[in-house]
Amino acid sequence: MRRILVLSGGIGGARFLRGLLRAAPEAEVTVIGNTGDDIHLFGLKVCPDLDTVMYTLGGGIHEEQGWGRADETFAVKEELAAYGVGPEWFGLGDRDFATHIVRTQMLAAGYPLSAVTEALCQRWQPGVRLLPMTDDRVETHVLIDDPDGSGNDAGADGSDGGAEGRRRAVHFQEYWVRLRAAMPAHAVVPVGADQAKPAPGVLEAIAEADVVVFPPSNPVVSVGTILAVPGIREAIADAGVPVVGVSPIIGNAPVRGMADKVLAAVGVEATAAAVARHYGPGLLDAWLVDTVDADSVAEVEAAGIRCRAVPLLMTDTEATAEMARAALTIATEVKAA
Amino acid sequence: MRRILVLSGGIGGARFLRGLLRAAPEAEVTVIGNTGDDIHLFGLKVCPDLDTVMYTLGGGIHEEQGWGRADETFAVKEELAAYGVGPEWFGLGDRDFATHIVRTQMLAAGYPLSAVTEALCQRWQPGVRLLPMTDDRVETHVLIDDPDGSGNDAGADGSDGGAEGRRRAVHFQEYWVRLRAAMPAHAVVPVGADQAKPAPGVLEAIAEADVVVFPPSNPVVSVGTILAVPGIREAIADAGVPVVGVSPIIGNAPVRGMADKVLAAVGVEATAAAVARHYGPGLLDAWLVDTVDADSVAEVEAAGIRCRAVPLLMTDTEATAEMARAALTIATEVKAA
Repeated sequence: MRRILVLSGGIGGARFLRGLLRAAPEAEVTVIGNTGDDIHLFGLKVCPDLDTVMYTLGGGIHEEQGWGRADETFAVKEELAAYGVGPEWFGLGDRDFATHIVRTQMLAAGYPLSAVTEALCQRWQPGVRLLPMTDDRVETHVLIDDPDGSGNDAGADGSDGGAEGRRRAVHFQEYWVRLRAAMPAHAVVPVGADQAKPAPGVLEAIAEADVVVFPPSNPVVSVGTILAVPGIREAIADAGVPVVGVSPIIGNAPVRGMADKVLAAVGVEATAAAVARHYGPGLLDAWLVDTVDADSVAEVEAAGIRCRAVPLLMTDTEATAEMARAALTIATEVKAA
Repeated sequence: MRRILVLSGGIGGARFLRGLLRAAPEAEVTVIGNTGDDIHLFGLKVCPDLDTVMYTLGGGIHEEQGWGRADETFAVKEELAAYGVGPEWFGLGDRDFATHIVRTQMLAAGYPLSAVTEALCQRWQPGVRLLPMTDDRVETHVLIDDPDGSGNDAGADGSDGGAEGRRRAVHFQEYWVRLRAAMPAHAVVPVGADQAKPAPGVLEAIAEADVVVFPPSNPVVSVGTILAVPGIREAIADAGVPVVGVSPIIGNAPVRGMADKVLAAVGVEATAAAVARHYGPGLLDAWLVDTVDADSVAEVEAAGIRCRAVPLLMTDTEATAEMARAALTIATEVKAA
């Protein structure tokens, strides 16, 4: 289990990775980061999930918040608001702005996102190799009932909002951050994913991995989006190494965030077992559920996925490391089986 | 003298304008701002002179410094430096960054600089109509002895640096801010000016003006660059209204800045009289020199330019207003003559 590949979203994945690095300090960890949450704000390219991984592992994260920079200030955002330039609902701090400025400048100079991410990581030294899932543009859109009631006949995802009544496709960040997932998501569409190619190094990293781990990231908009890039799901399924996952659902609710909202959009119950079945035995070899969900172990195993109940609350790095050890242990069992 | 047109650089022009607005509160003041100092930094379009005018008249300027924003912080710049991204010699503060972000975003959306400047001024309400001299790209380059000694065979200004020994063309901001004009300027070239068109409204404002004022801005890299845009000098000379200037040189030295360095590059002595002759009687009708330069009045008048010696130190707004009143008075005399 020397080479570990992790598919990660933002906060949940990043915190799990911190535990994994403690649990397996000798491992070579490659992280494929979700870029479906990426958004252009103020003309700048913002990659929330990549940055959360980078800041968390590099020691720059705002610990309590889970995203953004520690010791952050907001002068730029206040000034933009004074110019009447929004959105105001996205909390970009001054330190964070610098990251987006560097990224945008490098992208404008012609570097692909993967090269830009590598350059940014030169500073942060996250202790993992961080790869965006793709260098191509993918934007997760969410189809909702139009809060303004004005409809949107042609959503950016190509959906015919008009035919659905008054529905509207919004960027995932708008749904998640501005609207706080307060209304049902009728569909979650990773726009552009079908045309995207895995970033350089992604398929190679999968092929070389000794184990693939799905951390407790959102199964729809984080891990699901990465798997939607053609070639990635297939490469993982065909890699012939254990694929183990950690449930982001504990006691029928997301540990944090609003994963239940987007699970409903894909017809998946917000239970640890349902998420395991959603990934499916064709992809997933083993699954960790929390001890409070111990009664679902049998259900998951009945679906052909090895399962164990262990404490899954990432209360601190050591507790998280223990989760990671459990994931590596069950992977070893899969391999031996 | 209801409609006043002012050709302005940064600090000197902006401070003079503040006095002018006090001296002539009923006037309609149009400012043609120099954009030759503009520079792309961190992928953002920075317009130092336009912003200095806007911030000074809009109440946002750092008073002591004369440029940049009051109550400024530097988190973004510090972070960029942590990424190894420079230049570090250009002092962009967090509040200032917001202006450049808005500007860059609007330019990327297709708005010309004149429209962007108008939009930024919606916030600042400078009390003048601020027009960039052109919407086209002009960049003032300075030809210097190469401090690295490595030469630069093809300067961006088209000069053959190699043939001159080891000379190098640097952006004006690099010469002025990074190198602090510590070495002689062999030439000052407003690259692109010959292809530039006056911004919308510039020629109309000149045609409608009752008086044209050259404030104590740099005669070479500020007023001179504006005059280098084809059509502007001619329109002013042909407008048939008084053109009056205020000397930026007092007692054979620039009041602030390093105007003497760039005056030398165009073969002009750093004296109040020499600057008046540099503008020339074909353009300039009247000239104000400081009282310490009273003995140069005769020399200026001998060159065919009406001249008066008055206090020219802009120690406060009222002293500056008094300068502006003197400029309007001498303009009235020109008109009556």
